[in-house]
This record gives sequence, C-alpha cells and structure tokens, in this order.
Amino acid sequence: MTANYNAWFQCASGCDERYELDQIVYKCEKCNGLLEVRHDMDKLKQKTPDYWKELFGRRYMRTEWPYGSGVWGKKELVCPNISNENIVSLYEGGSNLFWAKRFGEELKLRDLWIKQCGNAHTGSFKDLGMTVLVSMVKQMISEGRGILGVACASTGDTSAALAAYCAAAGIPAIVFLPKDKVSTSQLVQPLANNALTLSIDTDFDGCMKLVREVCSRENIYLANSMNSLRIEGQKTVSIEITQQFDWEVPDVIVVPGGNLGNVTALGSGFLMMKDLGIIDKLPRLVCAQAERANPLYLSYLKNFEDYRPIQAQKTLANAIQIGDPVSIHRAIKTLKAFNGVVEQATENELADAAARADRSGLFNCPHTGVALAVLMKLVKKDVIKTDEKVVVISTAHGLKFPEFKIGYYTGTIKGVESRYMNRPVEVRADYDTIRTAVFKAIERGCYDLQPSQKKGPPQR
Amino acid sequence: MTANYNAWFQCASGCDERYELDQIVYKCEKCNGLLEVRHDMDKLKQKTPDYWKELFGRRYMRTEWPYGSGVWGKKELVCPNISNENIVSLYEGGSNLFWAKRFGEELKLRDLWIKQCGNAHTGSFKDLGMTVLVSMVKQMISEGRGILGVACASTGDTSAALAAYCAAAGIPAIVFLPKDKVSTSQLVQPLANNALTLSIDTDFDGCMKLVREVCSRENIYLANSMNSLRIEGQKTVSIEITQQFDWEVPDVIVVPGGNLGNVTALGSGFLMMKDLGIIDKLPRLVCAQAERANPLYLSYLKNFEDYRPIQAQKTLANAIQIGDPVSIHRAIKTLKAFNGVVEQATENELADAAARADRSGLFNCPHTGVALAVLMKLVKKDVIKTDEKVVVISTAHGLKFPEFKIGYYTGTIKGVESRYMNRPVEVRADYDTIRTAVFKAIERGCYDLQPSQKKGPPQR
Repeated sequence: MTANYNAWFQCASGCDERYELDQIVYKCEKCNGLLEVRHDMDKLKQKTPDYWKELFGRRYMRTEWPYGSGVWGKKELVCPNISNENIVSLYEGGSNLFWAKRFGEELKLRDLWIKQCGNAHTGSFKDLGMTVLVSMVKQMISEGRGILGVACASTGDTSAALAAYCAAAGIPAIVFLPKDKVSTSQLVQPLANNALTLSIDTDFDGCMKLVREVCSRENIYLANSMNSLRIEGQKTVSIEITQQFDWEVPDVIVVPGGNLGNVTALGSGFLMMKDLGIIDKLPRLVCAQAERANPLYLSYLKNFEDYRPIQAQKTLANAIQIGDPVSIHRAIKTLKAFNGVVEQATENELADAAARADRSGLFNCPHTGVALAVLMKLVKKDVIKTDEKVVVISTAHGLKFPEFKIGYYTGTIKGVESRYMNRPVEVRADYDTIRTAVFKAIERGCYDLQPSQKKGPPQR
Repeated sequence: MTANYNAWFQCASGCDERYELDQIVYKCEKCNGLLEVRHDMDKLKQKTPDYWKELFGRRYMRTEWPYGSGVWGKKELVCPNISNENIVSLYEGGSNLFWAKRFGEELKLRDLWIKQCGNAHTGSFKDLGMTVLVSMVKQMISEGRGILGVACASTGDTSAALAAYCAAAGIPAIVFLPKDKVSTSQLVQPLANNALTLSIDTDFDGCMKLVREVCSRENIYLANSMNSLRIEGQKTVSIEITQQFDWEVPDVIVVPGGNLGNVTALGSGFLMMKDLGIIDKLPRLVCAQAERANPLYLSYLKNFEDYRPIQAQKTLANAIQIGDPVSIHRAIKTLKAFNGVVEQATENELADAAARADRSGLFNCPHTGVALAVLMKLVKKDVIKTDEKVVVISTAHGLKFPEFKIGYYTGTIKGVESRYMNRPVEVRADYDTIRTAVFKAIERGCYDLQPSQKKGPPQR
C-alpha cells in the first residue's frame, strides 16, 4: 500500500457493503448491486492541492517506475493498494491533447481540443483501465490466490487490451466470442497476444452467461465492464486533461457513450479533484450516443425520470452498440451532477463528422465520429457556446477500424453518403495532365495558405 | 531563430557548398551531392552538458508550446531556424520504451527494450521527421515564398505523415502513386487527410521522376527521403532513448534499414550528444535488412569496400523494399563509426519473430519483425552479448499492417509457415467443453504464473 492510502469496493446501491480490492467479487453479495471503488478521502485531503499538482507534474512521463505512466503517476487517487512490483504498465496515458485549430475554426469554436486516447499501446482508451485490473490480478497471484487466468466476453477493444496486458505479465487471457459473428480482423490483436479465443456456438448473451459461469466456478478472474477497477484507471483522463491545461478545467467535455463506464469515470475524476481542492469548478459533460443505440438519450428526453433498455441496432460505432448499459444509473447520476446533456447521431452524421474532422489532420474512429457529430449539433443549437473551451474524447485510433475508413472512402457503406469523399485521381503519366490536376485540387481545396500568426495553441 | 543558434544545409560530398534551410534546394547545386543539415556546434558547445539535460528534461511532454513535443523539446539541436508560431506539431515522440522482460528472458537477454516509435499520431516514426519538414514549409509560406503545396511519391507511411501534418497546417499535400499498384487500405490515411492522391499510369520510378519534375518546375515542395530536414527530426529518437535511460547510453541499437535514413539519423543524434559532452560513449549500431532487399548487407559482407544497387524483391517488409538506398553512403559512414553490424532476415524469420515477440504483449509491424529476427540471430551468434543493454527500434504500429497480421494468423501468407500461429478454438456452448478447453490452454501456455518479484524495469 502506498503511504497508507486506502481504497476498497463499496456497494453503489447504498447498502454500504465493503470488500477489499483484492477480493474476487464483482457485485454486492448482499443486494446484488454494482460495486464502486471508494477512497479514504480524509487521508487524501491531508495533502494540499499544490502537493498533488506538484507530485503529478513531477512524475508525468518520467522514468521512475511505475509513475511515468499517466495512470500510475496518479496512483494514490487510482489504486494505492497495489505494490509497485506487481504493476503491469505499458506506459498508458500521456496522449496528445490535439488542438483542433482548423476544425474549430470551421465550427466557429475558439478553443477546441481532441483528447487522443486511442494513441495508446493497443490503440484504444481501454488500456487505461486494463492496467489497473491486470495489475490487481498480478497482485492477487503474488498473494497466493491461485488465479489461473483472466477472461472476458468482448469482440473488440476490451479483448485487445486484456490480451496485451496479460501477455506482458505472463498471465493467461481467455476471450469468449460468438462463433461466426466476429472477423479475424477484430480478433487479430488477442490472437497475436496469445490469448485463448473461444469461438462458441451461441450468441453474445450466451457468451456473457458462460464467461460469468466459468469465472464464478473456477479460479478465473472476470474482466468485464462491471469491474469497477477499470473505471479507476479511466478516470485519470479527467485529471490528465486538466493537467495538460495547466490545471484549468475546460467548459465542456464530449464523450461517446455505450456501456457508459467512461461517463462515470470522467465524472469520478473531476469530482475527486474538486473534493481535493485541485479544481474549483466542474465542466459540463455531454454524452454522445449513436441513434441506433440510444437508451440514455431516450431517458434524457424524459429528464431521466424513466429508463428502459432497448434492443440496440447495428451501428458503425459497434463498441457502443449497447441497448442496456451496465453503468446506466451511475452515468445518470453523473450527468445530473455535471449539468449534463445527451445527444445522438445517425450513421450518416457520425461517418461524415469523422471524415470532416479528418480533413484537418485527424484519423477518427466511428465512436469519435459520434462525439464530433454531437458536438456540431450542439454548437448549432447554441447549447455549446462558441467561446467555450471544449474537449472531445477520442476513444480509439482510426487504424483500429480499417473497414470503416476504407468503406467511407470507397463509398461502400450502406446508407452512408460519404459527403466528404476523397478518391484517388487517375491521370496519364504526362506532365501537363498532372499539373492541371494539381492546380485544380489546390484551387478547390479551401486550404489556408496564409498560416495564422497565432503563437501556438491558446493554452497548453 | 532560437537564441541565435543556427543550422544550414551543407553538401555531404565534401564540396562544402552551403544553403539556408528555407531555400528550396534538395541537392548540392555545384556537385549534385546529398545535402545534410549542419549545426553551429561552437555555439551549442557554449552550454554545458548539464544545461542540455536539464532543459530537455524540463520540457519533456510538458505544456509550453511547442516544447512538449519530443522533437521540439530538442529544438536547438534539431532546427533552431523555425519560429515557434510556424511549428506544425502533433506532439510527436515521447513513445514508450517498452521493457521486453518476458521476450528478453526467452532470448536470455538481461536487459531488452523496444522503442515504440509507431505509437504516434499517424502510426509510424515518420511523424518525427515530417513535423520538421512541414514546419519549415509553413515558415517559408509565412515569408512569402508562395509555396503552393508539398508532394511526395510514397505508398505508405511517408504519405500518411505528410498528409496529416499538411492537413493540420492547412497546406495542400499531393501524393504520387503508380496506378493499380496500391490498395485503398494503404491510401486511406492520405485520403482521409484530404491529400490529392494521383494514381498515375506508370510504375514507381515513373512517379518519382514526375514528382521531381513537378517540384522543380512549380512552387511545390518535395518531401522525399533525400530531404535531410526529416533526418533532423528522426535523430531525436537517439536523444529520447538516452533520456529515457536517465542519460545512460545502451550498448546496442537494432534498427530495420531500407532507404537507410534512420541509420543515419540515429548515428547523427548520438554523435551530436557526444560532441556536446552529454554522453561519453557510442552504442553499437545494428542495421537489419530483409533478405529480399539487402544491398547494405551484401556490401557489409565485403567490409563495405564495394557497394552495388540491387533489384529488391517483394517482401512483407514493404517499407524497406529498396534496392538502391538514398542514404547508402551516409549509412556506411555511420556504421563504420559505430562498430556497426548488418544482418538479414528471411520472410519466414521476420514473420515468426514479430509473432513470437507479440506473445509477450507487443503488436509488431513486419519491419520491426526484421529487426527482432536479426536480434535473435546475433544473440545466437554471440555478436550481441546476453548482458548487454539492447534497444530495438520499432518503426510502426502493427495496426498499420492488417493484411500482414491477419495473413499470419490465418496461415495465408505464401511461403510463411506461421510457427507461432494462434487460432480461435471452436467449442460448443457447454460448460464442461469450455472448461476443458480453458485448462488445456493454460497448461500448454507456458505462462509465468509466479510473477517475478523484480522491482520493475532495471533502468528507466
């Protein structure tokens, strides 16, 4: 334990059951409620805000193991209960807060930033949470708990992150998947990282049921999104963004939402900083949903007075294609505390928003597309003001979604118009033909050939 | 100019012609030799080694524009002639120096590290050089030089980096490509970043000839690898690695080599640090070539006394599929100064090496596979000693090479055996069947279930 700081699992439903973080427990054993990680805030509050800012600054991206990691540099606020020698870190966090100068200008936003969480070891923000979960498993193994492996049911980023961290630590990873529903492209990261990938003769819900059964009957740890250790790692995004603004809190944060762990995590990071006096205001949180998987949006329309799970339809933003989010109640609570807004985006809107922003130097995944489309809608509706400092959370690297990117630029995604299409221009190997093509493109390109004389980003 | 430091182009062939860095010049106008960037070393030497270490440390990954970038944090040593307001930076550098504990143990190497240069905005190390080139173009535009765009002939990482940096700056980018030789998958990054991609009715050499002609006759800047501004950015890899080891120089560095700019750049960074007294020894440099594109290796076998261009054959490591490297003479000079070694790897060897290392948490591109295969050979031959501190340069993220990764794990790459194959295991949705599969995999998995009690990496 780090300097006697402490954290534990506590039932989030109010029954106040507590468990140690190295217990193998996923839900409250008394009331079956979700568990959340609670910290000994009295102990943490014994330090001044300046102490924390100085400490986090001193460690950030530096060489003292494991504190150079964006997650473990905030260890006291994340998971103080793990010994440093058990930490499994791939230098997560520290991703670029991209100053979207040109895209911001298009939207008349003065101060727009995109947090590139996908610029990570496995290409998505999932690394941030997985480092905490796998480190805790390593700690439990070192305590002689006899854990044989870690399992999850996931088709995408979660299984990639689980497999990579387990491979680095030498812990078996097991991925449960529905047979014939998943392409090799989606599987190639866990396969490369030597995970056992089970292709099971059932659907996704069947896989989930089976992985839970295996984890409850055998000594296999469950890495699903209800595991709130991962939230603790993900919440460092809030702290890192604030740190990258020299401890200034942005006005608005836009995040794509499916299972809604990320909304919860962002909120949790800001609330903890406020509680410790590191910041004195909260940003407004915007949750962006795909129209085809919008249960939170539907609830928001009714002031969160009613919530009903839906049947999610197929969406390009497949990682948030979720009809009954695990963290729905925590997310609603968070949004209420953060003057929250929920907005949705159609398939066309999300694909075009990703492509439009790509034109100014990004390479967005479809989920980031959802967030960007929602941003554009809310600016238009004047919900987000043009003088506000806005951060959009980009959850994965576009390179993780080759079918989406190639489909858009070949115009082959059904129902998507590809308004920001760009195709190779076929020309003969002849100087004049090429010259004409080049000058035509430069003319229609709407480029900004007189670079602004602004001295770099307004804040960093 | 930063504090009166200065750098300029100088003919590398010894004729001592000099040009300003903002001149549009690619080769020596007197003798047609390659140009290299030279720095006013006397001026730089007026500062102490501790001054530089402290300065680079203070800036590293911090918020003061543009010095948080791994490249621009070393601006005085890279390109002092660019005004900060013209710098086009996407926070390049600062990539993880991955401690390959488990893979090192397999090879009996005590101290093995993989520098993850592919964990970057566009997914490859090319960002490091491109930020310098595009910033210089922006500077030239701001000086009223009337540059209309930047062009290159490239099928891969270079065009992706060029397009992204130009898109961020609002400068037109033009990519020249041979028709029908390039897949949309290779093109999708420049297309997304709004580059004009010309698909030309000729071969690659024809494209190269045309792009040179366009750039010499029109106000279009040439971004090809002979442009030595890019080397200045790439050389920060040497400095950053040393910084990440708290200014200790590793014993050996292994880097894949095609056009050989990277060998030149790594050498240049170390020599400059030695000249400034920041380090007092040089590492041994190992250049790893694909057997199918091995002109440097063939020359090395004859003690570099003879060099002949070859016709490169098709290799999985397509970014280094080069028979007549631009930087051949600079690279030979560098290798001689660094007690250099050249070794080659077959297609089978490079694919297996990438996959074998992936099992301990990486996701290697084929070029990194070449470097890893060469590492394994040289350890076996006792050229690299097991107690040496070794760094392998990983040049791109595996996510940039989906065909390679999927091909390996589906066993569909012609001539590659996929010895480290891992396939999904098909099972019925039945508890006992799944339990059996899980336990069988755990048994054969050779996992390290008793985590070592080592207190993190030996050095960081």
